[in-house]
This record gives sequence, structure tokens and C-alpha cells, in this order.
Amino acid sequence: MWLELDRESPLTLARQIYRQLREMILNGDLASGHKLPSTRSLASELSVSRNTVIEAYSQLIAEGYLKTYKGSGTVVADGLHALDIVVPMERKLIITPEKAPPEKEIIDFRTGIPALEYFPRKEWSNIYREVCQKGPASGFGYCGASGIWELREAIAGYLYRTRGLSCAPGQIMITSGTTQGLSLISHILRDNQKTVLVENPSHSGLRNVITMAGCSIEGVPADEKGLRTELIHDKRKISFIYTTPSHQYPLGGILPIQMRLELVRYAEQNDCYVVEDDYDSEFRYEGPPVSSLYELNPQRVIYCGSFSKVLAPALRLGFMILPQKLLGKYKQLKTYSDLHTDSLGQYTLARFIQNGGFEKYIWKMKKYYGRNRSILMKELSKWLPGRFDVLGHATGLHVVVQFHDTIFTREIINTIVDNGVRVYPVGSFYIVKEPEHNDKIILGYSHLPPDKIVRGIEIMSNALL
Amino acid sequence: MWLELDRESPLTLARQIYRQLREMILNGDLASGHKLPSTRSLASELSVSRNTVIEAYSQLIAEGYLKTYKGSGTVVADGLHALDIVVPMERKLIITPEKAPPEKEIIDFRTGIPALEYFPRKEWSNIYREVCQKGPASGFGYCGASGIWELREAIAGYLYRTRGLSCAPGQIMITSGTTQGLSLISHILRDNQKTVLVENPSHSGLRNVITMAGCSIEGVPADEKGLRTELIHDKRKISFIYTTPSHQYPLGGILPIQMRLELVRYAEQNDCYVVEDDYDSEFRYEGPPVSSLYELNPQRVIYCGSFSKVLAPALRLGFMILPQKLLGKYKQLKTYSDLHTDSLGQYTLARFIQNGGFEKYIWKMKKYYGRNRSILMKELSKWLPGRFDVLGHATGLHVVVQFHDTIFTREIINTIVDNGVRVYPVGSFYIVKEPEHNDKIILGYSHLPPDKIVRGIEIMSNALL
Repeated sequence: MWLELDRESPLTLARQIYRQLREMILNGDLASGHKLPSTRSLASELSVSRNTVIEAYSQLIAEGYLKTYKGSGTVVADGLHALDIVVPMERKLIITPEKAPPEKEIIDFRTGIPALEYFPRKEWSNIYREVCQKGPASGFGYCGASGIWELREAIAGYLYRTRGLSCAPGQIMITSGTTQGLSLISHILRDNQKTVLVENPSHSGLRNVITMAGCSIEGVPADEKGLRTELIHDKRKISFIYTTPSHQYPLGGILPIQMRLELVRYAEQNDCYVVEDDYDSEFRYEGPPVSSLYELNPQRVIYCGSFSKVLAPALRLGFMILPQKLLGKYKQLKTYSDLHTDSLGQYTLARFIQNGGFEKYIWKMKKYYGRNRSILMKELSKWLPGRFDVLGHATGLHVVVQFHDTIFTREIINTIVDNGVRVYPVGSFYIVKEPEHNDKIILGYSHLPPDKIVRGIEIMSNALL
Repeated sequence: MWLELDRESPLTLARQIYRQLREMILNGDLASGHKLPSTRSLASELSVSRNTVIEAYSQLIAEGYLKTYKGSGTVVADGLHALDIVVPMERKLIITPEKAPPEKEIIDFRTGIPALEYFPRKEWSNIYREVCQKGPASGFGYCGASGIWELREAIAGYLYRTRGLSCAPGQIMITSGTTQGLSLISHILRDNQKTVLVENPSHSGLRNVITMAGCSIEGVPADEKGLRTELIHDKRKISFIYTTPSHQYPLGGILPIQMRLELVRYAEQNDCYVVEDDYDSEFRYEGPPVSSLYELNPQRVIYCGSFSKVLAPALRLGFMILPQKLLGKYKQLKTYSDLHTDSLGQYTLARFIQNGGFEKYIWKMKKYYGRNRSILMKELSKWLPGRFDVLGHATGLHVVVQFHDTIFTREIINTIVDNGVRVYPVGSFYIVKEPEHNDKIILGYSHLPPDKIVRGIEIMSNALL
């Protein structure tokens, strides 16, 4: 029997024999009832050990390709001729990364990426190692959908110390980042009769998360002060309102208390929820941290926190504080979405918070980002004196700059890109792009080292001269 | 002004002043327009530093509770009397774990939990540490929804070496466990006009994953040989068929080739998909690994693999091999579900596979589980000679035992539990419980050390005498 064996192949000889026989059976070269050579004779024919052939045969028998009859030896089983079936030929693995070829280095003022080169590699990996080597074996099993208790407790303590926000650890649900939290909440609160209100402008990715979950969204204008709550008075049914009160994304405003009260009152009166996305309030460069909307009405506000901005996106760790009423539904949905979030990462973060390393790290980064921010400001005033105002508060990882004399048209943006810098006009953050807002641009300064910021602003400014 | 400061509190003094003033404003004790004492006088009144009071005031101003007028000092802003708002009182954190008190130690023959005490703690955490300390900073940022290329490449190579399964790494999508993979696939293939066929009996949790995604399911009988494909002939529309051909869960059969061909033919003819859940075929104690259904028709079969059984559930790492046609939709849905799976874990697994540690580990565990299995068999024959048959093949992490003379009624199960052992009758794995199948029970032996297995079988047997 003609079989071709490749002794260089990663496949064992038995496997190769198996695959070639299988192919011959499926494509009809070996018809039903055809008697195969004895293992001994095929072995000597191929000059392989007899066990190799036995292994191949026994697999074909186990899978039903071959039958053995006392006396009459091994024959091909019935009903296997299958020309219509796609049988993949033996082939080397196609190893061709999808990634496009790396484009030329560009200074990108995008928002929301922390300074990855400052990730606390040593502390984090040492804690992870300790968790992994000294933790109880049960820690490698399934943990509850809510997340591990130690982390929920640590987060509750952290929020209380740094934001004065008090909640029970039992209400804190660990998510694989804010994206997952928002997605699950949207699924839970989805209601075909109702709409989700989102700030306009806002983060388009998060708007997509809500619509992908099957909710229909509607924008409510936001300005430098944040969501314009006075515009939410229609009586249409609302399932929830997505908002960023501590630092409106992207405009940067802090929602004033009067509007906060209006918002939670609205939720109370219309029996809906407010989702408070507190994505970057850890970084505030003047004044104490703003307090949360959550505190004003823990029964109506869903608080979303993320560790992607303060630590690293790669970890996919975030949390939500949920009203008691939603806990049951949430746990069920999380269970059937991915059971729970990676628990070794959860244990590691819990200890990092408990041993104080996390808050130390935030302080360090706050200094660093604050410096980046003032460098950015200094450069702007140096190159474009009197031509712009800065919107929003000195907080977070990006700044919004409004120009008196410039509209950032596609042409201008492209010119700047051609010169090696990317900036983002505010108009593109609206549900329906609003070019009239392209007098404002967003500059993220967290992931760019100072020299890049300096160079980037110089390049942009020259393009605007 | 009467304020109470607690110098033991985790809250700073400024924060305490801020919160108490805010409370007095919201509940009306401090009415709109009310003039506050100067920072200097309040500071001396409370005997705290003036900066402390300035910090509290400036936050109240930043949040809009207070206004400052040239000359007239600091006054309470308008429209803040809000008796209707729930303002949480200062309170200590409620630290009460949800967990129920640990119940008395029971020998639980549940299925699907690996031997957690054998997790390769050292190798894994050392690799993780190296990844974390020596990897490029970009590794801490967002990675694509498909997962990191190195891991997809490593998995492709692993599948080719160990299963002879060839696929392009570009088709391998990293999931946060099979649960997530199945959930996303169910969302993608959901179609109100169509049904999802599942094996009956099967894993109830995974059935729930499919229905939670909005699909309606229907059972197709499975027996010791696996899915009874001859029963899938109705012309109702099917979106996909969920199956476990390498080791039917729970009955343990290997689907014969004739039925495999029938299955992929059916998918081809009815333009639907087959989901092949290959949850534990790494552990096969006799004969070579069974080949995958996927190979018979890569355009119609979605292959699901998991690392929860071979490594640890805690890691939440799995993968799917998807037909080209579904890649785009999948990536989009994954992006808006949780962006991507934790990438440090992905890098670690990639290296563990590349350096050969992973396959060594599987071999080691295969030996261990094989021993557990034969111990279990030996004990069964010792205590219950001639009273049972073993169904299914010698593979995976559990065995199905059929009794000739015993029906495992709730009473019997409870007696066994009262004696400290839990076993699972097969009847409960059916979509509609089928007591007539309670002559069979499932015994998982992977997570139980040998002595527990011995003791457990003895206890169960005594309850059956």
C-alpha cells in the first residue's frame, strides 16, 4: 500500500499513517469491505515498528473507519465514501500574522491610555507570583461571578479612603473592565419600550457597547459643565442614563451639584437608573477629588470604576457598584457570559491595594501626568499664544483646547498627520458628527513622554501657522 | 458651628468637614444664602489647621454647594435643600462576606474540576513574572479582540502536534473560557426563526448559556455512542448543533465516523453550523486521541477548546476555531463585550506551550488521572462486584457507571450525602429530568486524591448494600 511518511514532520508516524488511510477511505480509494494488510506486513513494508501500525489501526477502529472480524482481519467499514466532505490535506501551518505592517512612528494625542512604561512591573509580578505559589489550591478553581471577596473588600476600603464613598463590598461586582460592566448592565436594563440616554458628545466605543446589547440610544447635549440635565424632561420611557459626572468625556466638565440632584431626582421619579462612569477621577491636579453621584442615591446610581486607566488595560479589571435590586440579575448574566473574571489577577490586585502599593502608585502617576499636563500647556501657550482656551477642569488624562481662529477640518487634520502628529477634533465625538465643534480638539497626554509632547505640539502648531 | 471630627477615622479631617457641611446643606440645616464662618475662625473653632478647612470649603465650592462673593465671603448656593434625596450617613464599612459558613467536608464526585493542587504554580508564575518584567510596555495596553498572536500561533502548533488538527492561527480566537465562546457564538448565530439543537443529556450550565443568549434550544437524544444523528431529520430551521463528539458529556461516548459524516453533511445541506465542544479529550487513557469533527468540514464546524480542565478554571482561558465567514462578526461582538481577554495570562500561556512545559504537564496529569481512574474502578469492583457496567470510553475526567439493580432515587442520593459523599444520577442531566436514567451515575475523579476516592466509594457502596 502506497503511503508516504515524512520523518521530519511534527506528526508521529502512526498519526501520518492514520491520516493517509483515513483520506483514502473517505475519498473512496479504499472502498467499504476492502481488507487491509496485516499490521506486521504493513509495518515491514513501511519499515516502521509494528506498534506504530497497530496504533494507527486502533485509532481508525476506535473512530469507526475500520472493522475487525475474527479471522478475516481488518476491513474498511461501510458508508464512508464521502467525496462531498471537505477533507483538509496535510499542510504546514500557515503562519501569517494579521497585523498590518507597522506604520511610520506618529505622535498620537489619543486619550485614555496610561503611561504603560511606568506599569509597576516588579511589585505586580512579585505579588502575582506570591499569590500563585503560596495561595490555597482552591484559588485555581472557579470563583463566584461577583469576584473574589478580598478584592471587593479592598475596593470598598479604597473608595472610602480616597473618595469618601461608602458601599458594602457585597454590592461591588468585579468586571472584566468597564466595557463588560456596561455591556452586562445594558443587557439587564434593555427594554424595547425604553431608550438609553447618553451624553452627546461621548465615547463612541461605549455608545456601541450599549447599542450592541440591543438598546436604542438617544443623545442629550453636554457642555463644559457636563450633561445638560435641564434638557431631560420629555416623558418618553428611559431605561438608564449614561453619564460621566466627575469629568465629562470628552469635554472635561464637572457636573454641578444642582444638576446632580436633578439627575437622581429624575431617576427616582421615572423609575430608571443613572450609570456613573468614573473613568479617570483618580487623577485630579487641583482641589480634592469630586464626590460621586452614587452617594446621592445608591438605589438609583450604578457606579462604574476601571483599573485600565490607573494600572493597565491589559489586565481587564474593573468593577461596578450595583443597587441591591440588580445584584441577582447581574450575577446570573455574568455567570452565563464568562462565569467570572480571571481570579489570579483579582487576588493580585487585592493585595496590591491592601499593601498600600496601589495608592502609592497612583500618587506617583498623578505627579507624572500633572507634569505632562503643564508641559503641554506651556508648549501650547508658547506656540499659539492667545489663540486658544482650555475647557474643563484640571483632571484626568486629556485636555480639550478650543481655538478662536481655527477649525480642524479633515484637510488640516491630514496635514498634521502627514507631519507625524494625530489630534482629535471634538466634532467627531458626537453621535452625528458636528463639524461646528471642530474648533475644539482633544489632547491626551498620559501615554506620551514629555519630549514627544513638546515635539508634537511644535509640529501641530507649525501646521497651524 | 457644630461639627464632630473623628481623628481615628480613615477619612481625612477635611473630608469629614466637607461631608458634614454637605449633609447640613442637603437636609436644610444650612439654608441657601446662609453665610459660613471664615476658614480661619472655623479652623480655630475645630482646632484644625486652616488648610484643612480651606480644602473642605474649596471642594464644596468646586461641587457647587457653596459660592464665594467678593467681600461677602462664602455662602450656601441655591436650590440644594433636598430632603427627598437619600444621603448616606457616615458609616463604617459593612464587612460581611456573602459566603455561607463552610458546610461539613463532603467527598464530592462532581465532574470537570482538575486537580488544583497540582497546578504548575512555579513554572506558571515564573513565566508570568518574566512576561511582566521583561515584556514590551505595549503588552500592558489593549490587545486585539482575537487575542495575542503568539498564543494563537502556539495553540495552532499544539493542536497540530497533539491532535493532527491543522488550522490557521488567524482563525483561532482567544476566549475567556468556553462559556464566553459559546455565549458569543450563540449571540452571533441567534435567529428567532431557528432553533439550537443540543445533545440530551448534556451540561445544563452550557444549555443555559445558549438560552441566556436568546436562543431557543431543543434536545436530540444521545446514547453511549454519542449524539443520535439519525434523529436529526426534521426540516425545522436549525442555527447550530451543540455537540461533544470526542467524549459525549456526560455519557462518555465517542461519536462514530458514520455519524460524524452525517452531522457535517446535515450542516452543509441545511446551511447551519456544528459547535464541537472538545472539553477534555487531552486525557485519553487508552488508544490515540480521537480526531476532531472540525477536520471533516472547517467551514461548518466551530471548535471550542478550554484550558480550564487542563490547567485551571481560575485563568479563564479558552479558544475557538472559527470559519472565516464568522471571524468578522465574532471580533466585533467580542470587542463590545469585554474588548479582549487578559493579555498577561495570554502571553504566559503562549510561552508555557512554546517551551514545552504545557505538554509535559498534560502528560504528568494524564498519568495521575489515569491512576485515579483505575483506583476508582478497582474500588467499585471490590465493593459492588457484578452489580454495574462502565459506560463510555476510558477518557476524560469522569466515568459513568450503570447499575443493574439500583435506581438512584432522591432518597438514596440523600442517604449517601448524609454519609458524606455526593454522586450525580444521569437523569438530572436531561433537559427534562428523566428518572428512568437514574440507574446511571457520574463519578468525577480528577479533583479527588486517591484516598478520598477509596473512602468515597466505600461509603457509597455501604449505602447501597
